[in-house]
Amino acid sequence: MAKKMKVGIIGAGRIGKVHSQSIMNHIPEVEIKAISDVYFEGAKEWAEKMGIPTATNDYKDILNDPEIDAVLICSSTDTHAQISIEAAKAGKHIFCEKPVDLSVEKVEAVLEAVKEAGVKFQVGFNRRFDHNFSRVKNLIDEGKVGDLHIVKITSRDPAPPPAEYVKVSGGIFLDMTIHDFDMARFLVGCEVEEVYVSAAVRVDPAIGEAGDVDTAVITLKFEDGTICVIDNSRKAAYGYDQRVEVFGSKGKVEVANDTPSTAVLSTEEGVFSDKPKYFFLERYMDSFVDEMKQFMDAVINDKEVPVTGIDGLKPVLIGLAAKKSLETGAPVKL
Amino acid sequence: MAKKMKVGIIGAGRIGKVHSQSIMNHIPEVEIKAISDVYFEGAKEWAEKMGIPTATNDYKDILNDPEIDAVLICSSTDTHAQISIEAAKAGKHIFCEKPVDLSVEKVEAVLEAVKEAGVKFQVGFNRRFDHNFSRVKNLIDEGKVGDLHIVKITSRDPAPPPAEYVKVSGGIFLDMTIHDFDMARFLVGCEVEEVYVSAAVRVDPAIGEAGDVDTAVITLKFEDGTICVIDNSRKAAYGYDQRVEVFGSKGKVEVANDTPSTAVLSTEEGVFSDKPKYFFLERYMDSFVDEMKQFMDAVINDKEVPVTGIDGLKPVLIGLAAKKSLETGAPVKL
Amino acid sequence: MAKKMKVGIIGAGRIGKVHSQSIMNHIPEVEIKAISDVYFEGAKEWAEKMGIPTATNDYKDILNDPEIDAVLICSSTDTHAQISIEAAKAGKHIFCEKPVDLSVEKVEAVLEAVKEAGVKFQVGFNRRFDHNFSRVKNLIDEGKVGDLHIVKITSRDPAPPPAEYVKVSGGIFLDMTIHDFDMARFLVGCEVEEVYVSAAVRVDPAIGEAGDVDTAVITLKFEDGTICVIDNSRKAAYGYDQRVEVFGSKGKVEVANDTPSTAVLSTEEGVFSDKPKYFFLERYMDSFVDEMKQFMDAVINDKEVPVTGIDGLKPVLIGLAAKKSLETGAPVKL
Amino acid sequence: MAKKMKVGIIGAGRIGKVHSQSIMNHIPEVEIKAISDVYFEGAKEWAEKMGIPTATNDYKDILNDPEIDAVLICSSTDTHAQISIEAAKAGKHIFCEKPVDLSVEKVEAVLEAVKEAGVKFQVGFNRRFDHNFSRVKNLIDEGKVGDLHIVKITSRDPAPPPAEYVKVSGGIFLDMTIHDFDMARFLVGCEVEEVYVSAAVRVDPAIGEAGDVDTAVITLKFEDGTICVIDNSRKAAYGYDQRVEVFGSKGKVEVANDTPSTAVLSTEEGVFSDKPKYFFLERYMDSFVDEMKQFMDAVINDKEVPVTGIDGLKPVLIGLAAKKSLETGAPVKL
Repeated sequence: MAKKMKVGIIGAGRIGKVHSQSIMNHIPEVEIKAISDVYFEGAKEWAEKMGIPTATNDYKDILNDPEIDAVLICSSTDTHAQISIEAAKAGKHIFCEKPVDLSVEKVEAVLEAVKEAGVKFQVGFNRRFDHNFSRVKNLIDEGKVGDLHIVKITSRDPAPPPAEYVKVSGGIFLDMTIHDFDMARFLVGCEVEEVYVSAAVRVDPAIGEAGDVDTAVITLKFEDGTICVIDNSRKAAYGYDQRVEVFGSKGKVEVANDTPSTAVLSTEEGVFSDKPKYFFLERYMDSFVDEMKQFMDAVINDKEVPVTGIDGLKPVLIGLAAKKSLETGAPVKL
Repeated sequence: MAKKMKVGIIGAGRIGKVHSQSIMNHIPEVEIKAISDVYFEGAKEWAEKMGIPTATNDYKDILNDPEIDAVLICSSTDTHAQISIEAAKAGKHIFCEKPVDLSVEKVEAVLEAVKEAGVKFQVGFNRRFDHNFSRVKNLIDEGKVGDLHIVKITSRDPAPPPAEYVKVSGGIFLDMTIHDFDMARFLVGCEVEEVYVSAAVRVDPAIGEAGDVDTAVITLKFEDGTICVIDNSRKAAYGYDQRVEVFGSKGKVEVANDTPSTAVLSTEEGVFSDKPKYFFLERYMDSFVDEMKQFMDAVINDKEVPVTGIDGLKPVLIGLAAKKSLETGAPVKL
Repeated sequence: MAKKMKVGIIGAGRIGKVHSQSIMNHIPEVEIKAISDVYFEGAKEWAEKMGIPTATNDYKDILNDPEIDAVLICSSTDTHAQISIEAAKAGKHIFCEKPVDLSVEKVEAVLEAVKEAGVKFQVGFNRRFDHNFSRVKNLIDEGKVGDLHIVKITSRDPAPPPAEYVKVSGGIFLDMTIHDFDMARFLVGCEVEEVYVSAAVRVDPAIGEAGDVDTAVITLKFEDGTICVIDNSRKAAYGYDQRVEVFGSKGKVEVANDTPSTAVLSTEEGVFSDKPKYFFLERYMDSFVDEMKQFMDAVINDKEVPVTGIDGLKPVLIGLAAKKSLETGAPVKL
Repeated sequence: MAKKMKVGIIGAGRIGKVHSQSIMNHIPEVEIKAISDVYFEGAKEWAEKMGIPTATNDYKDILNDPEIDAVLICSSTDTHAQISIEAAKAGKHIFCEKPVDLSVEKVEAVLEAVKEAGVKFQVGFNRRFDHNFSRVKNLIDEGKVGDLHIVKITSRDPAPPPAEYVKVSGGIFLDMTIHDFDMARFLVGCEVEEVYVSAAVRVDPAIGEAGDVDTAVITLKFEDGTICVIDNSRKAAYGYDQRVEVFGSKGKVEVANDTPSTAVLSTEEGVFSDKPKYFFLERYMDSFVDEMKQFMDAVINDKEVPVTGIDGLKPVLIGLAAKKSLETGAPVKL
């Protein structure tokens, strides 16, 4: 067997664990050499369970390990920028979870550091790798939809986060819609010029008290004239609702939710189908694997990463414009 | 057989013919006594074909006929208001095609005349009677969707009208979206407070030269906090696209397009289904019959009409606000 | 208006009423001059309601009326053959409800009489005119499915008939499956060579006591090698289930049930769709209109009828073979 | 990390590789210690690629290894019985690919040996573990479908095997339908009493020349009165077609095929959806993982295996009866 590339994972929370499983189960060319977490016991337990040689509470141990070629930054959002900059300086290729940061200046600083160091930098917008959304993108690229006119993105969570989380989340646009802003840019293939938000607190008054909204319709105007409308809710009673529809001069393409099975039960009471797969771990597990595969491929074979630093920056800019639109009640130009 | 109620039809164009067929084939309690058209030959030919006793080129002949209890105003839009007022004064119950008028003052004058005369006045928003949309309304009324949060209406035509028509149409919002404004009010059950439009010329430059847009996303904020988003296109390559999705605290209800058949063909090339029914005559024929039945029932049995004069006025107000939003680029309060 | 063709309806029960409405609402070229029923009051009431000039308790009054060109035989099954023969001798064109008779000899006598008289004779296998099944047939005829290999027909009723009816029905194969035998012949386009039945009493013991079965799977081998399998039940809890699937060398075509609406409700409890349209009057109403239109067109314009006397005979032969297979437990050749 | 259970894999062909990946990627409690294949290079290459310590050309090396607790028999069908018996005698738990053997005597000898040795013995009917079919089974077990009346199984391959393979395959019923016989028993939950086959050569004359059929409809009568009908084709132009429909006193449950995506493209040409997932590796990969998990769980925690030796025997008996029915043209009792 050829010598494996060695990586370190910074952050042993849920998403750090997801990525470590993707690598161990699906990417035989890569070895996880170390995992760190400020909560050392968490890192240690996971390392033992998965057979990862090193656990540490200090991510610098990973950055300082000369055998490690690439790092996965899966720590809390407020640490992404700082660790990214340090990792770039240490010459490590970087996979950084979204959002890179809620501050444009900090994201730009990361991009600068990455550029100087000449390392790969991929941002964790995993939905681009979802089998449904990537199929939509392919159909657009093949010209089946023609020139794009209207893009509709539905993105609703099965349950709202706790109000405590909402307070530190940066608000729905930077916390939740940011994925949809990325999806919009991914599908349309150019940049947003103007944002208008219509939003309300409809799900949980505590979210309003925490200074945020939980229901929103966001209209984006793109450079090329395409109009995109995103609708968000923090709570869909029937589960995780993740769909897009792209309408253009030649037709439309739509994707429905994935379901646990295709079973349809017909009885005297009615005709029953499955609800969508419950939440992002169920729906997007394969996409987490695929984004990791493509990152590793980019590093090992010196290719372009599929989600760049600019792709990390732009949704933050759109999200901040959306916040301003909500505050002013008017459309906001970027 | 009991004595039949007698009605007159003013306007022997496409929609006048549709209503005459609905009555003759499906409403045995009602007899069409006369039909008028400024183009007399058209009225005469249709009268002969359908066995309608009287054809005339002057609608006043119908208004002056004391045997006629109700009139259907199916003439050109610019005559709706004037004829409605005269018909009210003549004591006729009135079914008036949409829009009543593009001017708010004129619509209000009609409403005033109708009120004074104490006659029934129903406006031709037939889509409320469509089997799919009325099913959505019933589910909302039964509380299955809970409190409404987001309403999405898709309304796309299979082909754009000629630029000549566009020039006199009053613009897309009063000509096409007006049906969707009515649908939004029908589903949400309260009034619109604010309108924001994002629109463009994407289908046909000639429409732009005629001073209109052909692609639009309209966001409506309702009194009760519900957000509604309508997307319109003058041309969907795959045909007439008429769908709604209503999302609320307990779930969502969606309706798909009707199709000519349920056939699905699977071959080496792929899996093929039917396109939507081609245009409004195919899709909405049953709803034309049902709106006519309910109008006749309201007249014969002295019930409330299902679509009132206010229902005729409000979408005009929303349409004018939408026009202003398009001009100013800002949301407009009603 | 051109002079209308005059027809008489023999039998004022449910199906006689259906056909009279089809003609009055949809076939302006035809006038119903008379209706007969052994229960005179029934014929009289319906004639008054619909404006049919003549009601009688004797079908011979209709056969003897020289103004009447064609008759619709909608009386009880045991009278079909006799009346058909008399009508043929009287020179009337004939639309005869299915089955023509349960006895092969009598059906053959009818065919002979019809041939001698040179009148049109159409049998009431209305399902051929259903929008879904006719679409399947068109796709087959266009070669989209290639050579046929397997045809699957599902035909289940929403509720079993009373045991009293079962006793005189001729058994499930001649009463219910006969429609499916016709559908199989219609789709495959050649004749059945062998029949095998696997059947049981699963729905209602009273049906078993009446000497019949209520659940059956029937395998048909066609001359050209196509295998067809029909599954029947006298009771599907979710309603009237009427589907076909045709599989061939180039692919398959399937049709689903029609539903009252396309609404899909998603809640915490699940995803709910409409049940099929309730029963044959809801599902097949348009097909009743279309078979009548084609019959009248064949008579007026001297065309071939779309469902011939042979099409009336063959399903009886298959049904009798099915009965024998059930009795013997072995396949039966025709 | 707890000490892992050690297993050996006998046969390094396609299915042996599938199982080795399932274990390595998804069952951390189990270690593959050795793999054998009569073609040594194949075993060696795979062992190196996957990090399996031992490769051998003699399965007896695996049976003789005292550290190995369980074996997976993935060699050619004609060796299953002999190796199973030897493995049982060596005290190994056994997972054996289907079919155990084409001879009833040999299968019975295996069952006897397994019983004497007191080892676990699971047969590789993986489709029971498919997310769709297991959902159907759960709905049946929950009583949602009521008493079963009719079960329909569609099982069609995307492309026929080479005629050379057909000659040694044991015929379609033991090679292909055997999976469907298992599915029928799994869903109905009791035994088959009678089999009737209607079959033909429709796909490829070479299959007929090899003494087999390629198109078949098989009717099964179960002890409890349920009627099951299976339809098979060696070639469905649109791909792998794997569906079931279960109809009972309370309703029906159906499962559709899985597809690569939920994308639906609507254009002027029509409405296009994905074809089914291509073949069994795409469709059933998760079920291979699940059957392996349950086997390992049964061994490690001394539970009943989910697919027993009897489950291996019965489909062979049904398949032989089907062969006889094809030869005689008559139904065959078991």
